[in-house]
Order: sequence, then structure tokens, then C-alpha cells
Amino acid sequence: MQTPLMCGVFGIWNHPEAAKLTYLGLHALQHRGQEGAGIVSGELQADHFSRHHARGLVADVFTEEALQELTGPRAIGHVRYSTAGGSAPANVQPFKVDTLRGPLSIAHNGNLVNFLDIRRDLEREGAIFSTRSDTEVLVHLLARARAPRMEDRVREACTQVVGAYTLLIMHRDGLMGVRDPHGYRPLVLGKVGGAWVLASETCALDLIGGELVREVEPGEMVSIGLDGQLRSERLYHAPDATPQACVFELVYFARPNSRIFNEDAYEARRKMGMQLAREATPEADLVMPVPDSGVPAALGFAEQAGLPFRHGLIRSHYVGRTFIEPTQSIRNFGVKLKLSAVRSVVEDKRVVVIDDSVVRGTTSRKIVEIIRTAGAKEVHVRISAPPTRYPCFYGINTPSREELIASRMSVEQTAEYLHADSLAYLSEAGLHEAVHDQLGPTRRFCNACFTGRYRAGLEIIEGRLPVVGNLPPETETAA
Amino acid sequence: MQTPLMCGVFGIWNHPEAAKLTYLGLHALQHRGQEGAGIVSGELQADHFSRHHARGLVADVFTEEALQELTGPRAIGHVRYSTAGGSAPANVQPFKVDTLRGPLSIAHNGNLVNFLDIRRDLEREGAIFSTRSDTEVLVHLLARARAPRMEDRVREACTQVVGAYTLLIMHRDGLMGVRDPHGYRPLVLGKVGGAWVLASETCALDLIGGELVREVEPGEMVSIGLDGQLRSERLYHAPDATPQACVFELVYFARPNSRIFNEDAYEARRKMGMQLAREATPEADLVMPVPDSGVPAALGFAEQAGLPFRHGLIRSHYVGRTFIEPTQSIRNFGVKLKLSAVRSVVEDKRVVVIDDSVVRGTTSRKIVEIIRTAGAKEVHVRISAPPTRYPCFYGINTPSREELIASRMSVEQTAEYLHADSLAYLSEAGLHEAVHDQLGPTRRFCNACFTGRYRAGLEIIEGRLPVVGNLPPETETAA
Amino acid sequence: MQTPLMCGVFGIWNHPEAAKLTYLGLHALQHRGQEGAGIVSGELQADHFSRHHARGLVADVFTEEALQELTGPRAIGHVRYSTAGGSAPANVQPFKVDTLRGPLSIAHNGNLVNFLDIRRDLEREGAIFSTRSDTEVLVHLLARARAPRMEDRVREACTQVVGAYTLLIMHRDGLMGVRDPHGYRPLVLGKVGGAWVLASETCALDLIGGELVREVEPGEMVSIGLDGQLRSERLYHAPDATPQACVFELVYFARPNSRIFNEDAYEARRKMGMQLAREATPEADLVMPVPDSGVPAALGFAEQAGLPFRHGLIRSHYVGRTFIEPTQSIRNFGVKLKLSAVRSVVEDKRVVVIDDSVVRGTTSRKIVEIIRTAGAKEVHVRISAPPTRYPCFYGINTPSREELIASRMSVEQTAEYLHADSLAYLSEAGLHEAVHDQLGPTRRFCNACFTGRYRAGLEIIEGRLPVVGNLPPETETAA
Amino acid sequence: MQTPLMCGVFGIWNHPEAAKLTYLGLHALQHRGQEGAGIVSGELQADHFSRHHARGLVADVFTEEALQELTGPRAIGHVRYSTAGGSAPANVQPFKVDTLRGPLSIAHNGNLVNFLDIRRDLEREGAIFSTRSDTEVLVHLLARARAPRMEDRVREACTQVVGAYTLLIMHRDGLMGVRDPHGYRPLVLGKVGGAWVLASETCALDLIGGELVREVEPGEMVSIGLDGQLRSERLYHAPDATPQACVFELVYFARPNSRIFNEDAYEARRKMGMQLAREATPEADLVMPVPDSGVPAALGFAEQAGLPFRHGLIRSHYVGRTFIEPTQSIRNFGVKLKLSAVRSVVEDKRVVVIDDSVVRGTTSRKIVEIIRTAGAKEVHVRISAPPTRYPCFYGINTPSREELIASRMSVEQTAEYLHADSLAYLSEAGLHEAVHDQLGPTRRFCNACFTGRYRAGLEIIEGRLPVVGNLPPETETAA
Repeated sequence: MQTPLMCGVFGIWNHPEAAKLTYLGLHALQHRGQEGAGIVSGELQADHFSRHHARGLVADVFTEEALQELTGPRAIGHVRYSTAGGSAPANVQPFKVDTLRGPLSIAHNGNLVNFLDIRRDLEREGAIFSTRSDTEVLVHLLARARAPRMEDRVREACTQVVGAYTLLIMHRDGLMGVRDPHGYRPLVLGKVGGAWVLASETCALDLIGGELVREVEPGEMVSIGLDGQLRSERLYHAPDATPQACVFELVYFARPNSRIFNEDAYEARRKMGMQLAREATPEADLVMPVPDSGVPAALGFAEQAGLPFRHGLIRSHYVGRTFIEPTQSIRNFGVKLKLSAVRSVVEDKRVVVIDDSVVRGTTSRKIVEIIRTAGAKEVHVRISAPPTRYPCFYGINTPSREELIASRMSVEQTAEYLHADSLAYLSEAGLHEAVHDQLGPTRRFCNACFTGRYRAGLEIIEGRLPVVGNLPPETETAA
Repeated sequence: MQTPLMCGVFGIWNHPEAAKLTYLGLHALQHRGQEGAGIVSGELQADHFSRHHARGLVADVFTEEALQELTGPRAIGHVRYSTAGGSAPANVQPFKVDTLRGPLSIAHNGNLVNFLDIRRDLEREGAIFSTRSDTEVLVHLLARARAPRMEDRVREACTQVVGAYTLLIMHRDGLMGVRDPHGYRPLVLGKVGGAWVLASETCALDLIGGELVREVEPGEMVSIGLDGQLRSERLYHAPDATPQACVFELVYFARPNSRIFNEDAYEARRKMGMQLAREATPEADLVMPVPDSGVPAALGFAEQAGLPFRHGLIRSHYVGRTFIEPTQSIRNFGVKLKLSAVRSVVEDKRVVVIDDSVVRGTTSRKIVEIIRTAGAKEVHVRISAPPTRYPCFYGINTPSREELIASRMSVEQTAEYLHADSLAYLSEAGLHEAVHDQLGPTRRFCNACFTGRYRAGLEIIEGRLPVVGNLPPETETAA
Repeated sequence: MQTPLMCGVFGIWNHPEAAKLTYLGLHALQHRGQEGAGIVSGELQADHFSRHHARGLVADVFTEEALQELTGPRAIGHVRYSTAGGSAPANVQPFKVDTLRGPLSIAHNGNLVNFLDIRRDLEREGAIFSTRSDTEVLVHLLARARAPRMEDRVREACTQVVGAYTLLIMHRDGLMGVRDPHGYRPLVLGKVGGAWVLASETCALDLIGGELVREVEPGEMVSIGLDGQLRSERLYHAPDATPQACVFELVYFARPNSRIFNEDAYEARRKMGMQLAREATPEADLVMPVPDSGVPAALGFAEQAGLPFRHGLIRSHYVGRTFIEPTQSIRNFGVKLKLSAVRSVVEDKRVVVIDDSVVRGTTSRKIVEIIRTAGAKEVHVRISAPPTRYPCFYGINTPSREELIASRMSVEQTAEYLHADSLAYLSEAGLHEAVHDQLGPTRRFCNACFTGRYRAGLEIIEGRLPVVGNLPPETETAA
Repeated sequence: MQTPLMCGVFGIWNHPEAAKLTYLGLHALQHRGQEGAGIVSGELQADHFSRHHARGLVADVFTEEALQELTGPRAIGHVRYSTAGGSAPANVQPFKVDTLRGPLSIAHNGNLVNFLDIRRDLEREGAIFSTRSDTEVLVHLLARARAPRMEDRVREACTQVVGAYTLLIMHRDGLMGVRDPHGYRPLVLGKVGGAWVLASETCALDLIGGELVREVEPGEMVSIGLDGQLRSERLYHAPDATPQACVFELVYFARPNSRIFNEDAYEARRKMGMQLAREATPEADLVMPVPDSGVPAALGFAEQAGLPFRHGLIRSHYVGRTFIEPTQSIRNFGVKLKLSAVRSVVEDKRVVVIDDSVVRGTTSRKIVEIIRTAGAKEVHVRISAPPTRYPCFYGINTPSREELIASRMSVEQTAEYLHADSLAYLSEAGLHEAVHDQLGPTRRFCNACFTGRYRAGLEIIEGRLPVVGNLPPETETAA
């Protein structure tokens, strides 16, 4: 599947600086997507919307001039993650189209697992597709829905799709926020001044001086209309749809200062580290994080283990996308540009290094080497989550099962590959403990990436998602 | 109407350097549109096409790298004219979409006069529109057409639209060229090596070393399939559809070295000048063109009038789009940056200055002033076409009737406004004579811009086209 | 020698929009140099100047913002010609330095033939050089001159250099214009409103609505001080310095609407064409120019020869610097992108094609081929100047003697190389006649490129200039 | 003074990838200067050098293409700090000039306090200055020095200047590294493979896989010649020149993983934090750093004070230079974009926040507000250095005395201004203890910014440096 993977959304209703606050909100959500950004704005009741979008970081995409053209007191915005080189500029969200009932704009975080089937059906009815995005399917379904109320049309469209979707929808007369019945991706509701705000994470509210009202619930649809009132409705009746919040949002994806799924990300991470220390503290002299994401877990680990905490790895602030490598004599360049070890901290020490995941293993291996080169006597790698053995089909951009090192190797083999003196992962039970969840049927977090137990709609399927298709790659560029 | 106005198209089938030749062909057609350019390419039988497009000149839009990504032995391309500042990047053609029957790409020159009605109908059926372009309506009609043969689907779509359209269509298994039954816009068929070429004008063939096979006829549909054979079919039976070739293509729009509508543009212009001399030669010392477009007519005029021909106005090669004007002391800047008078040619002389049109009159007025400032004793303005009194709805970007000076003023009033000692236009009869046409019911050229007699389908409507609508402006930008 | 070759200069004193008018003046002089442009401005009495410069065209180099930072009522500017890829950004003029007596800025058109000797001497005294430019030598000489009056310091500096130099000098309290005693390069004095203007050609005056006062004489130094008065002094006493104006300025380098060396460029070219017709009119059907520079000569030729004049070659307005060539099947691309033949003009005709020079012969050869490919029966090439057999050391960027075709081949051999049916050059006597000059010791034009008789100072040296040195190439780039 | 303030230098001798390693070394030193970067390279024995430089970050300034043009096995590079908007592109170092003895290139970190006097003298001798940089004075002095040995010429030049200078000098036959007799700025000597390396900090060695040989001593001149041997000489005899290493390099300027002045920056900072805890631990619940620079000191503080260490402030990785602020409703934007407080960490807590300096006080005030807004009960600010009361004239870019809050307010007043519950600075004695120094005449660190006791040459001057001049600002831009 191509898109949208790991994205952030932000929307605001009835604020004199709607586009500018959306721009700031997207900046706060930049960690959720660095490939491209877009904003669509408009009057409260509008026959057309304005849009600006481009590839790149929020701060580069939007100039003062671009923001001034994004007029009107409401807006939605979207940041998206870099999947691969070939992604088309046309794919940058929010989508914006004209329909019979006026302009329509959608920003989507998540992934629809059955979009290829629906796309085929829609094409049979004469629909044309400008992108390979699953979101475009939703736009078509919305335009074709027949109910007079917008909320019912959204309901009509959403009952046809299966998967993960947090949506912001801007239509002629209102703004809506929707979370799929499983609630894979987060969405919070807030206010700034008198204006309603919808955002992926609370950090966007904090930046603009807004305050959290509450989380939008799984399967909830909130709708703000011309009267400025917020209405909440169930998306549709899905009695078996247990919550399936993505635990990786708390493990490493969300900003540490965000509150999502009614948990504080920082605190959850610290507890993961504490639990990990309970499970697997080696003989060692100090604990150090892989910055910045491993910091809270490392603090928890050090505290629990009673070991000194040190910043033995320093992160560079100046690493850009493209960097020219020397052709010889120097190895392991990519990571070295980003991380340096502090010799005075690690020399002759037995260090525990805390990270939040091992994906392919290549980066972890280089980190171990950097620490050893700086003189560490022993390097013990501790991961504040269970091994990632299965790809995600709900919006996190993981490689195929073959590329996941934990799917191919035992923990011992992996340790050897990393040249680590020891390696341990947080247990599944320990992880769920840290996020106030429990294993078993009543758990509220999705753990398919650890277990391979996927949900397609309400079914559980072991090992793979058979309905997931793929479109051939395409080249689409714009100068 | 927004788009597409004054455009150029180029397509090629089965050439190892398809994208590169399209790029060169578009460069040769650059005079037909300087706002943006795009190319879509693909394998002969393809499940997907590649596209590159951007705003700007052909030479800037396409880098070596961009051309290398446009793989495959067939391609179509499009250049479009700068209408106004607000035109959206999404509007850059060719369109490229996925449909039930595979990828589809369309490049369009012309203007559909009934597209708003059709768009409304399509929206009622759930269609969504990404642009304000009339071409997008055609894309929808093609995707919804049901006939098994592509040619019949094109026929099915085209019978629903009214207006001017020269189309290049690239579909899964072939390449097609279509001219509407009136043949407003040109399209020629050629060959380079063994590869078929379709282009707006023969100058594109000349540049790539190709040769002209023949013009595509009004109401003709040529289709090249996987066997490499070219088939010709009538688009549909339209017995009353007399040819309505746009005479302004010959007056000034086409490149002088092009052959279109079976006429040589240079020769046609020279004859317009000769005819104009027969009709309106004043007492004068010399004849000079407004360069470069007025040159052939001025040569014809001078020859016929027996007056010396001089290049009394020099055109700068370095005029860019944006130029910073001084805030005071200097007037008439825009034209002065582009044109300078040669004092030694015009000083103390009675000059005849030949141009191809007077639109709003502001530029002509400045030209007269430049010539006078350089010392001319008398300035006689001669226009190698009749007065433009009505806007074009078939693909030439003319201002509204109120802005056309010939619609508001008599010839004498216009002369006074221009500060010209005299002003004369070529007569309608004289123009048609020069292009081997005749006035009356059997004429083969459209002259609605002179007469206000428009055709909507097969009807003739005086003064305005009632079916022509307009969409509200929109802001759409991309960094 | 590296720099400065073929440049344009413009200066203005006491105008509220000094930088903006300099910008416009440089735009009018853009044909004299397309590689880079710079402006230095300041208050009438100034402790420092402001500068903006960059590579590229005037319209690209100067933004509104850049012009606004160029404050003050006086300014000088410079455009320079593209020599080769490697030229350093630091070389863009005007030079601007701080000296004991305050800020100093110099713009130079021409070439100093003994600058390497002086540079060596200066280096021996501890001078450091930031560029390879001969102009920097002048700057050093000026800074080291000891006389209390600026005019005397300029005199002191200029007596040490040999070669071609037209200089604009902006110092703490004034503006100066200088032409070397031979007057190789042009400089005119004008006024716009009450402000003094100095410019390479009158076309710059015309654009800003100024008027010509007179030419600055060879060996003259004009100086404007704080009182606003213009003073004229002899640069130094050089009794044997006969004028040596560059005849190629009139043959093709100056704008046709410019008046320099007290001649109208357009008229001079027309007379060259007439004289050429008297000398070498072949049997032919029509005369056509290589546009745009060959037009006036072709008009003169056609008139004198009694042959029809036609625009059989069309020049594209869209040729940029870099263009991507196809790798196969199409030959002679460079010129074809720029020039197209009009088939209806040349087909089955015996044509005379008029150009102003043949340098290496490669372009002329391609032009002949383009005309033949369009169907011409015979192609007779006529050049409105004598054969260029020797390189220029006075500011025109000619290739080495080995590369000049006229230096290697006879006229007959050249015709054969060009595939021309015949070839003729204007005679030297004919050229001088056309510019109101006479051959022999009293001639006022330099003709070293035809004759190889160079002047170094007051001496005449046959064949080559022994004092001319060369610095090794260097790489200097800036992003 | 304008330049060079806070810079980084890197040089390498005899490595096949000299320019690429210099590029990497400059990247590692990027924290020392983000305004501009430049590299000069050449053959071991060279008549000319190549240069590339531009404004911007190292990763943006150097493309693959630019690096390929920087040929030769030796290079020096320079990064410079952003002082203000108006700094000229010509100021980007390394300087590169031609002199009698061949090409010369200099990179300078530090600040010459008497450069205006010398500049005036040089101008009197006819020298011209292209920049306002003090480094250009050194270049002139070097070019004018008469000694046959390069080392003696450097000595001759350096005896004339007073102030802080770490220099890399590339001349025709060698590479030199120089530290002024007081050794204000660092310089280390290393090797990578067989190649000699000189760099501001060891982090540059680490990145390229090199190893530290030793520090270059204050007043030492190391010189590598064509034989590849490194020679060390005293710059000149300066018996009273006690070392004056800049203590702020260790407080916050150097990278934490660097070793300079024979100290580990990370360890020094941790000790500063420990000492600060000993001096001023308040009643509190936790300790948190201002990231990233405050981290080591905060760790030391927490450890010594026995308080929990938390990452209560999160730093954004996506803050660019320019950011568009909302015009209303939101205050304190600049810092909020960069730093966010973690509510779950600070809520209802008494926090100690550790930073390395308070300059104007505006940033610290905003940080306190951010922490309070997130719910902290008390905010105690602790600074791991003494109050900065005096500007630096030796290469750190501090504001004027009037702008330094510690110069205007008492500690209590400052605390009130910051809205901090308490404020304490590290004592001077404590700071020197942490860097193994002692107060009094034998101290080896400069502390003028705390005490106002400056050295001009060998004298000590209280309160200000009378010899320091200033040049008027100038505008110099390049597109």
C-alpha cells in the first residue's frame, strides 16, 4: 500500500487566523510526516476552498505569501511521511475536489485495507483516479453517497471501508473529525479562544496555546456546523469493534509531550523503561539512551536499575536529507553523521544502551560500533518494546516481514549480528502493563506487529492480511 | 472560461526517444503557450504512464533527469498559455488518470462551450472534479463511455461536448488524434523515421527532422494501435458542420514557418500585407513592422505599395516576465523594454507601421509614442486583420467585449486614441482572400471575433454565446 | 586573457532613483554581456558604497528587494559577457574596495594588454590579488597613486597601462568616465532630468528617457563632483594616439538603434549591405538575413541589388542556455533550436543569405544546411564585413587564430566547407567607406582583426601582441 | 567588530579525498558557525587553489559537483557564525588571494583587537580592502612580509596583531596551523591514515575516523611541508603571555563529545553542574536541563543534589531559520517552536532547570513561562557559569554591555525579571575548579566576560578595550 502512512492532521473552525494556526499545528506534528504538507482553507460557508501544498517540511512549504492566500476562518492541514522516492506530488494531502454539494476536502491518517476492491468497483462505474492513494477512494465514496445530511453521507462511505482511518473532513457548511471504530490512530479535540480544534496529538494544541477538551472516541464522528455547535454521533453500530489503538504511537511515534489514547507518552515510555529494567538489567556501569526517542525509557531504566544515567550519544542538529559520502576509508557514515559517542562517558565502561525498536538491525549495529569505537568495554542493548516481527497495515510504515530482523533471527542471533554483549526486548505483558492495558480479549491496543494477529473489519486473521493489494509504482514528478 | 486557452500539443508513437522528441516538439510549439508544460509517456501497452509537468518554459520544466524518468516509446505533451496569475498547477496538462480500462492521458487545445452543463450532470452522478478545466469533463466522459472499442468511446464522449477541441489521447493500447467537426484548432500528422507524430503545427515536425504526412481533417479521428497501423474514422456524422478553422492562427498565432489548415503562415501573412496595401496605402516614406509578428505582412505591404521596408523597431531578446519599474519620471515602460525605435530610420519620416491586431489599444498607443519620440513626422498604423470586436470562445484568450477597443470605438476614434495620423484595418473580404477563403456560407474559417456570429454546435448565435458559463476563481498553489 | 571582454557600463549622478535607472540602463545594454551584472551605489559623498552582483541576466540578478538596498542618488553598473564556464563570481564587476581615501568602485569595458607585467610589479610590493581580472590591476594603481586630486590619480594610474579601457569610476566625492587615448570602446554622455548619465551606448539613454549630450572623446576624462558640474580633461598627452574605435561595434556588437562613435549602427550596417551588393551580387531570387543581427545589412543589400527581401529564417524567442539534445537521429541541433527556415519562402529559390561574420564556420555551415533542407536551390552566403583572421586583444572575445576559419582557409575553401554555392566578404575598403572612414594612416577605426596590425601603446606590431600574457585557470564557485 | 566571530576551521594535508574530508570535518564543526562555509583546495605544490564557498549550512553549500571541482590532496575549510543579516558573501572564508610567492589561503577563528589601526596603516601604503574582515589585514601583512621562509613571514605578520587568532594557512608549498600566544581559541592536531589534520575540535577527527595526536599549544606554529614532516616552532617569544583559553568553549560552545584545552567538554560540564549543586541546591522535586546544551550539567547537578533527573523540556528538530508568526493571540512564539514542556513531568512539581548562560534574559524568561504554563509549582533557575557581565572581544559574539542582563541587574532582580522562584549562578571559583584551573595570576583561562579584565597584547585593561574600533556597516549582497 502506498499512502497515507504515518501522517498528522490538524483542523480549526472559526478562527481569524485559521491557516496560520494550522501551519503552526502542522509544525508541531512535523514528527508524524516530513515528506510533504498541505493546507486547505475557506470561509465558514464556501463554494470553493483554497489550497497550498508541496513536498518538504512545513517551514519550507509555507511562505508568508502562501499563508496569506489561504483565506477564511477555517482550515484543515496534513503532514505526510516519506515512504519512498517515487511518491507523487499529487498525493500530498488534504485532497480537495468539487462535488455536486460543493467543495470537499479530506485529510487522512491511517490505511484502508480494502481500498483496491472498492477502487475496482468505482472504476467500473466510470470513476477516474488521479492518484494511487487509498484516500481518493474515500473521496469518491463521499461524493457518491446520497443521504441529505453530510454526517449520514460520511457514515455511508465509512461503512464500506475496512482499516485504519482518522479523518478530517471540510465540506461546504462544516468541519468533521472521524475515528474508525477500532480507533487505530489518535485524534484529540481542543479549543483555542472560542475556536474548535482537531489534531492528531495534544502537542499541536500546546503550541498554539489551546487546551485539550477530550479525545475523539473510536467510532466517533464529531461535527461542527454553521451554528458553531459541536455534535457527536456514532460513526455506525459496531458492537464487536474493540479498541485497537496503535501501541507504537506510545512506544515512539508520538511526541513525548503529547497525551493520546488518554496516556502521557513521556510517562508511558518511562514506565516501559522501568519495566524493562525489572525484566532484564545486566551487570553494567551506566545507562544511556539513543537520543532523542530513547531518553524517557532510559531514564526509567536507570532509575529502576539503580544505575547512573549518562548522555553517552550526542545527536547532531544539522543532518539534512542528502549527504555526500566519502568513497573510501570511512565506514558507517549515515549514522555517524547523526550520532557521536562521548568518549569520556563510555570509555572502559559496561554500558546499557536503550532504544525503542530494532527494525532491520542495520542502524542498531552501527550504534553499537560507534559506542565500542569510543572505548566501551561492554555494550548491552535494551529495547523498550517487544520484537517487531510483522508489518503494520494500519498506517505505520514498516518494511516487509523478510526485512524485519526479529522475524528472521532469534534474540541471540540478533545480539550477535549487532555485536552486542547482550540484547533484551520488553515483554509483551510488560509493554501492556506500562500503557495500562492487559493482554487477552479485552486489551485496547493493537499488537499485530508483535503477534501477527491482524483484524480485517471485525475478523482476526493470523499472519497476513489477504485483502491487502498493491498498485504498480508510477512516476509522477513536478518541477 | 479558464482553460485550456491557446495551447500546443505533440504526440509520438514508437520512437526510442519518445519523451525527448516530445520535449523538442513542445519547444517548437512554445509560442502557443508559455505558462506550463507537461509530458506523459509510457510503454506501447501500459498499465501505467509516467508524467512530468510544471509551470514555466519547456527548457526550464524538463531537466535531463526528468526526461530520463519519462520512459517508454510513446508520449504526448502539452504547452499552455498564461491566462492569469491564479491558474493552478493541477491544471497543467496532459491529464493523466487511472480508469477501469487502464491509464488514460489527454492533451487538449481548444475550449468546450458547454462544459459547465455537463460538469453539473456528472457531479449529480457522483463525479468529483480536481480542477476547473473543461478538459477534465472530457476525461470523465471518456471513463464513463461504455463501448468496447476506444474509438467508439471517444465518439461517445465527443458527441456530448460542443466547442473547439483538438485532442491527443493516450490509452492503454494506443495513441489517438482528434479534431472537432468544425476544426477550429490545427493538428498535423507526420512521421519521423518510422514513428508517427501528431502536432499542432508543422514547425514541430521540422525541428525534429520529421516530415509532414497530411493535416488531420476537421471531424477526423486518427488512431494508432499496437500493430503500428494508422486508422482514420469520422468522429461522428455532422453533415452541417462546415469547417471553422480559426483565421487568427494564420493572422498571428502560428509560427511563420508553419503550415496549417493547408496554408503557409508566412505566405498568408505576406498576402494580408499586400491586400492591406491595396486597400489602404497612405502617403508615406517607408514601411516598418512591429517585430517579430508583423514582419511578413509589412514585407508584403511594402512590396505592394512600392515603399521602402525598414526595421525601424528593434525587439529586445532579454525581456523576462517580471520587471521592476521605476516609480517616477519614466512612462510607458512595459513596451519600451521590449521595443526600441531606430532614430536614424524614422527621424523626419512619414512611416507606416504594420501590426497584426489592436486588442485593448494600450500597446499600440505606446508603440506610436515610441516611434514619435524617435522623430517620426507621421505615423500611419495599418493592421493586417479586421477589427477584433468580439471575444473568442474557441481557444484564443481575448479580453471581454468591453475591453476590446474596436468594440467601443470607431476606427477614427481609435486612431485618435493611438495618436496615429491614420489607422486602417484589413477588410474582412481582403483577409479571406489572403487565406484562399471566401465570405458567405461556404467559408471555411471562423470569423466570430470580427462578426460576433458564434456557432454553438451547429447553430449560429449572434453577439454572445449564452451557454458559456464560468466557475468562481480558486486559489491553488504549490511550492 | 580572461576579463573583461565585451562588457557594458552605465553610471548616473544625482538621481533619486539612481540604482533603478542603472538597472534599466544595464538591461538596455544586456546584449553587451549576459554572464553577470552588478551595481554599486552610494550617497553623493560617501564613506561606503552598497553593492549587489551575481551571475545571470539583469532581470534575474536584481530583485525589487536588492534594488531597495542599493540606496543613494548615484550608481554605476556593469554587464559582462559569458566567456567560459569557469569564470569566478568574484569577477563580476563593478569592483568595490576601501582605500585610504574612501570607497572606490570601478566598472571597466576593454582589455589591458600589459596587465600581467604590472601585476607582477605590484605583487612584488606586497599587493594581493583576489581575481584574475586586469581591472583589479587598475584598482591597485589607483589606490597607490599619490596625487591629491582624484583626476590626477586616475591619470597616474592610466599612464601605466596599455590597451583598451572605457572606465566608470565612483569615488568618495564624485563620478568619472574615462576613455583610453585610442578610444577602442564607446562611451556616451547624456542627461535624464537634471542627472548626468554615462553609458556604453545611446540605447541605454533612450530606454530611461534621457538625451544624448555627446560622446566622451578618446583620451578624455569627464568628472562630476559634489557641485554637480561636469569637468572635462585630457587623460594625458598622447599626440600619436590616433583614434582606434572598434569597427566591430558597428558591424554587429552595438544595438542597431544605438549611436556610437558618432555613427548610427543601423545605418552603418545598411550601408555595409549596400556596399556588399555593389561588390558581390550573385544571380539570385531573393535576399534574406540571418536574424536579428543581419537584418539591416540584408535590407541594404536587397535594395542595392534590386532583389526581393524576405525573412526566410525565423528566430525562436525561447532558446535558453542549456538544452537537452537527443542522443541520436537528429543532427545540428544547436542552431536548429534557434533558427528555422520558412519553406514557402526558400523552396526552389536561389537565395542570398546575409550574416555579419564567419568565425569558426560551424554555425554558418549549419545555417546553410537548414536553408537547403527547406528546399533552397542555391545558397549564396554574403558577409557584411571582411574576413576575421586575427584575434582581438582589445575587448572582443574571439577565439585563437587557429580556430578562425578565415585564418586557415581561402574564401573558396570556406565556401566549400559551408556547402555554399558562393561566399563573399565585404572588402576592407568597402567597410571603411560604410563607416565614413578611410584606409591608411588617418583611419579612425581599429582593423587589427582583419589585418593583424595591433597597437601596443603607440607602436604597431604585426601578427601578434607579444606583451599579452595569461594566468593559469582557476576554479572559483559560489552556491 | 564584524568578523570572524565563533568559527570553526579544518585542514588536511595529503589525503586523496581532501575536500570531502574537509566537508565532513566542517559538518562536525557546524555548531561553531551556521552562517556560511567555504573550502579551498589544491595540489601539494600549487600555483593556484580552487575555492567554493557560500552562505548556508555545510550540507547545503557543498554539492557533489562542487566537491569534485575542489581537486587536490590538501584543503582548508571554515564555517562561520551568523552575526547579523548584513554580512557580505565576500566575507565567507577561507580567504584566497594571489601573491608574489603564489597562492595563499587563510582560515581564521578569533578576533584581532587592533586591526583597524593596522588597516589604516596599510591603506596609507596603497593597500585596498575588499571586506571589513580583520582577517584581510592578516592576509595583507603576510603578503608584505619579506622573510624568505614562510614560517618567518607568518611570525612577522603575527607580531603586529593583537587579539585572538587560531589560523590555518595554506601556501604554495605547505599547510600551517597557528595559535596566538594566549591560545584563546582551540586547535587540535590529528591524523587520518597517513594524512595530517588540523581542526578546531576533536569531534571533527572522530567523524572522519581520525585520531588525536595532541593539541596545538598557545603560541605554537605547526608547519607541514612538501616532505610531509610536521615542524613545530614558537610563533614568537612572549614570556608574559599566560594562556587565556576561552572558558566558554567548555561551558557551552564546544560539542560535548569534543576534547579541547586538554579537557573533555562533557565531563567539564558535568562537573560544573555538580559544583553548582554544591553551591545552590534548592528544595525541589526534580532537575531538568534546557536541551541540548544543559544536559551534562543537569545530570551532574541531579546526581550531586540527589534529585531525580527528568527531560521536562523537549526540543523540536524542525525549527528552521525563518518562521512565520501569528499576528495575534499567541505569545512567546520563538522559543515555543523550539522547546515544549512535558506536562506529565512538571505538573505540580518544584523544578530546577539548568542552563549554561543567561544573556539578555528574554529566552530564559520564556522558558520559565513555558514550564509554568505546563503546571510547575516552582521554577528554580540554575546557571552552570558565572554571570556574563562583559562583552567578549576574542571571538564570541556577545551583545553590548547594556544588553547583558547581568550587567544591568542584580541576581535578585534578574530572578524577578525571569519570574523564577530563585536564580543562582555557578561561582567563578567553582567554574575554574570544574575545568582544573585556579583563580589568580596563574589561571590558564580567560574570564574577561565575567570580570571585565581584558588583555590587549600583554597588558590588562579594566572594563573595556580602548583599541577596538568599528567600521561603518555596508550592504553587499549576491543573488
